[in-house]
Amino acid sequence: RIYDIAVIAGDGIGKEVMPEGIRVLEASARRHGFTLRQKWHDFAHCDYYARRGRMMPENWKEEIGKPAAIFFGAVGWPDIVPDHISLWGSLLQFRREYDQYVNLRPVKLMEGVPCPLAGRKPGDIDFWVIRENTEGEYSAIGGRMFEGTEREMVMQETVMTRKGVDRILKFAFDLARTRPRKLVTSATKSNGIAITMPYWDERVAEMASSYPDVSWNKFHIDILTANFVLKPQIFDVVVGSNLFGDILSDLGPACAGTIGIAPSGNINPEGEHPSLFEPVHGSAPDIAGQNLANPIGQIWSAAMMLDHLGEKQAAADIMRAIEMVLKEPSLRTRDLGGSADTQTCGKAIAVLLS
Amino acid sequence: RIYDIAVIAGDGIGKEVMPEGIRVLEASARRHGFTLRQKWHDFAHCDYYARRGRMMPENWKEEIGKPAAIFFGAVGWPDIVPDHISLWGSLLQFRREYDQYVNLRPVKLMEGVPCPLAGRKPGDIDFWVIRENTEGEYSAIGGRMFEGTEREMVMQETVMTRKGVDRILKFAFDLARTRPRKLVTSATKSNGIAITMPYWDERVAEMASSYPDVSWNKFHIDILTANFVLKPQIFDVVVGSNLFGDILSDLGPACAGTIGIAPSGNINPEGEHPSLFEPVHGSAPDIAGQNLANPIGQIWSAAMMLDHLGEKQAAADIMRAIEMVLKEPSLRTRDLGGSADTQTCGKAIAVLLS
Ligand SMILES: CC(C)[C@H](C(=O)O)[C@@H](O)C(=O)O
Ligand SMILES: CC(C)[C@H](C(=O)O)[C@@H](O)C(=O)O
Repeated sequence: RIYDIAVIAGDGIGKEVMPEGIRVLEASARRHGFTLRQKWHDFAHCDYYARRGRMMPENWKEEIGKPAAIFFGAVGWPDIVPDHISLWGSLLQFRREYDQYVNLRPVKLMEGVPCPLAGRKPGDIDFWVIRENTEGEYSAIGGRMFEGTEREMVMQETVMTRKGVDRILKFAFDLARTRPRKLVTSATKSNGIAITMPYWDERVAEMASSYPDVSWNKFHIDILTANFVLKPQIFDVVVGSNLFGDILSDLGPACAGTIGIAPSGNINPEGEHPSLFEPVHGSAPDIAGQNLANPIGQIWSAAMMLDHLGEKQAAADIMRAIEMVLKEPSLRTRDLGGSADTQTCGKAIAVLLS
Repeated sequence: RIYDIAVIAGDGIGKEVMPEGIRVLEASARRHGFTLRQKWHDFAHCDYYARRGRMMPENWKEEIGKPAAIFFGAVGWPDIVPDHISLWGSLLQFRREYDQYVNLRPVKLMEGVPCPLAGRKPGDIDFWVIRENTEGEYSAIGGRMFEGTEREMVMQETVMTRKGVDRILKFAFDLARTRPRKLVTSATKSNGIAITMPYWDERVAEMASSYPDVSWNKFHIDILTANFVLKPQIFDVVVGSNLFGDILSDLGPACAGTIGIAPSGNINPEGEHPSLFEPVHGSAPDIAGQNLANPIGQIWSAAMMLDHLGEKQAAADIMRAIEMVLKEPSLRTRDLGGSADTQTCGKAIAVLLS
């Protein structure tokens, strides 16, 4: 088995955690007898922007070609490029142009990770956030008027299409069907955002009617975030719009201890385009360059990528290695109360696979 | 001192907690020698809608007149009226038509309230959420197209005006100036919501430049919600758009134990229109009619109202009474591990004032 992987490290700690992700992938490939052909791309980072005035070459799609998956670090260096320019010129463009309409984010409290919630133990927090990843609040329609005057204003559309809403809901209900509790929770705000969100609710009710074996409920986003803290054990599969999914998939991992280990898959389920795997954390300028970053978000993303490629056993082995390393203070990074630096942690996981 | 108060109990537990709020206000008035002239309004609830097909009479503004403040319970009964209709027909209309552009929400961990965050004690969580309350994501512009077909879609504008953004930021910076730490945290999402949110950031930077004595920072809303859980002690005054403020002002109280005691003021700072005081919680159909509701959100809102009216001592006394009752299991309601029902809790607070 040979897989072509596009590798984009990005900015900041992306450049530090990516080598650890690759280290683990290579160990896994040796162990399980598959081959990863890596193509590293030296764009989609802010130094590139500084040199060329854009985040990626015009022919980036050609450059990337047709890999089996994209393995991505983190983008953003606001001292050089405002975040909305660096992100819309790279990551958000991939999500949209490759129609990676599912953003798949597990939330799981792991042994060894200090939990900020009182009295919660591994097993209490174990759910998925399924985020719509191509439309919604992240729209490109809008603008500014009366610039520089007292009447200055900005407007931006939220756009939801039946196609866009239905396919993410279908993904969530299909996923719930594979889980013991078979429960979908929809994030809404139809009491306040009274045009788009009632539509979302309508489509949820409609989709649910095709899944009589799956139960479902809905919460307004305000009380839903409250319940992540107060009752995280009630969630199984949580589905939300682009913005709500974004919020819940940072809040969820925080409730489970840290964003530092959280992975994500930006999935094009039909396989017409490559899917992209990346940690949930960003480029973290504040700790970049100090070998302090936790590489597990990147490594867990590698496991999700292998799972997506069909290497189920390899993925499961990485997860087991992550779990072992998390239990061991000398192998955990400092953000988790351990003493390891980025490489020590990454190497420990790789060694466990060999 | 005579104050005219408009009283609107609303739906569900609104009808149960309002009498306790009034009970406490009356005790406070007797104690401090002022008079509250109450005018109860039998509209802005879903039974009214069931009879009349609208939430309020056409001449509701005349009916309400020019009270010193509006004391509000909770609205919504989705079995009869969809939430977006009941809320846009009442509460959200008040906020907008009375230009109550500041939504003021304290977040405070109180002794006696079980905190879901590990190792936090009273004093660790003590900040304000200042929410823009008239524009932003809660807009009335948008609609649906290609209805009932595969191409069906909805769009809704987020609208931010310089006037709307600047005045809420000014309020936040002014408030921070009165606090020991003098720190404003801005909620943004300019990396993803790339039209309206960069504008928000721009106005924050501009406003901050007029407050050299106030420090400030900003977080994207996703990591900000994470930090509410991971580092609640770093916040002092948190300012956000209508939607972000809504989310943060449920999440904050949850981190401090419960939404059940959280109050809010919908303020028109210029005093051209009445301000409105209400608990953060909603009408809670699931527990309504059982005398289980925690009345402290309503009672704390009464204290905020008195403070707004200039009765500072009366407000401080209510807060002290709330703190005493929270420490006593037999006087706390069951949501806080106590054994009191709604009235027992309300009466206990009133008695402490007499
Ligand atoms: C009921 C709802 C429309 C309202 C809001 O979103 O503003 C509520 O959640 C609040 O926070 O006051
Ligand atoms: C960097 C940012 C644009 C991005 C998002 O909002 O989607 C990130 O927060 C994420 O969750 O992947």
